Amino acid sequence: MPKIVNHEEKKEQIAAATWRVILRGGMKGATVRSIAKEADISLGALRHYFSTQDELLAYAMQLVRERANARIQAILSETLPPKTMVRRVLFEIVPLNEDTRAEMDVWLAYVFSLGRKADSLGVQQEIYSGIRKMIEYLDHRRLLREDLDKELTAETLYSLVDGLAMHAFLEPRRLTKERTAAVLTSYLDSICIEEA
Amino acid sequence: MPKIVNHEEKKEQIAAATWRVILRGGMKGATVRSIAKEADISLGALRHYFSTQDELLAYAMQLVRERANARIQAILSETLPPKTMVRRVLFEIVPLNEDTRAEMDVWLAYVFSLGRKADSLGVQQEIYSGIRKMIEYLDHRRLLREDLDKELTAETLYSLVDGLAMHAFLEPRRLTKERTAAVLTSYLDSICIEEA
Repeated sequence: MPKIVNHEEKKEQIAAATWRVILRGGMKGATVRSIAKEADISLGALRHYFSTQDELLAYAMQLVRERANARIQAILSETLPPKTMVRRVLFEIVPLNEDTRAEMDVWLAYVFSLGRKADSLGVQQEIYSGIRKMIEYLDHRRLLREDLDKELTAETLYSLVDGLAMHAFLEPRRLTKERTAAVLTSYLDSICIEEA
Repeated sequence: MPKIVNHEEKKEQIAAATWRVILRGGMKGATVRSIAKEADISLGALRHYFSTQDELLAYAMQLVRERANARIQAILSETLPPKTMVRRVLFEIVPLNEDTRAEMDVWLAYVFSLGRKADSLGVQQEIYSGIRKMIEYLDHRRLLREDLDKELTAETLYSLVDGLAMHAFLEPRRLTKERTAAVLTSYLDSICIEEA
């Protein structure tokens, strides 16, 4: 009887191999050949699932997006005080454990490998618009300090989140998860009034 | 009479070609071959100056460092109110004009291409220690708000600076230089007391 292979499962396995290759040596080493080797399949088999390297990378990055979104949706469905909810969502974007760190690392390696193309692809749009919504939400719940410019505050928080992600990638030994969490928490406190 | 070629000048020309190649297509396209073509020299001539691609990249990045340091030293030698001085120095690190934007873009493309190797190379150490010194300086001049944790404030500013640089790279159309400057200025205001 022929072995039944779940197509989606196989694609996810290949995507996971792609992540490992990127994490080890950056995007430069993430060739179709090295990914096939890491996934322990032939080049031909890999090409059956992904006909180009760009297609493979796009899929691997789509998985990063979906995983992060699923975790955020789970938090949004809980009943939490507004500021706690915002903090919890932010903690899913910045790398605070091995899984989210790996996700963010491959994400950053990917977007930077795009060079000038990154802009037209709008790769970061979801993160920025998500953070704007969080600021709107805090304001709507009357937790945002009234003297703040909402636009600038969203831009600042967005830069802070990605700067932390970048440093967690470049300096994982120095920037511990405790320190990352403390920076975000103290910034959030500085823009909010006390929660009732 | 044989043409006299200035060795250092030639190396800088090659480094500039390297930057252009990286800016156009990211690190992936920055091969010795494409850089030689961009610099309009033979592969052999390029190898005369840089025997490996790593050597060439390291030199191009060293130039980024030196240029930024020279600009910062020029500001430090001026007589400026402390907070103004700190803001001016920060404005040399975040990309606020075409030159510094190009510098930061190649810098980021470079550090991210290193993958996990970036940590052991300590590529970002200079920026982080510079920012710590700025916070110490503000505190020493009694301009830093007294309720702040200096360590966390330095970490926050450091993340903010690199997050802005990252977004200027990924979203140059949205994140204008005016907006970048406004974010940094408002953050600096938020951690400082009024300058006398």
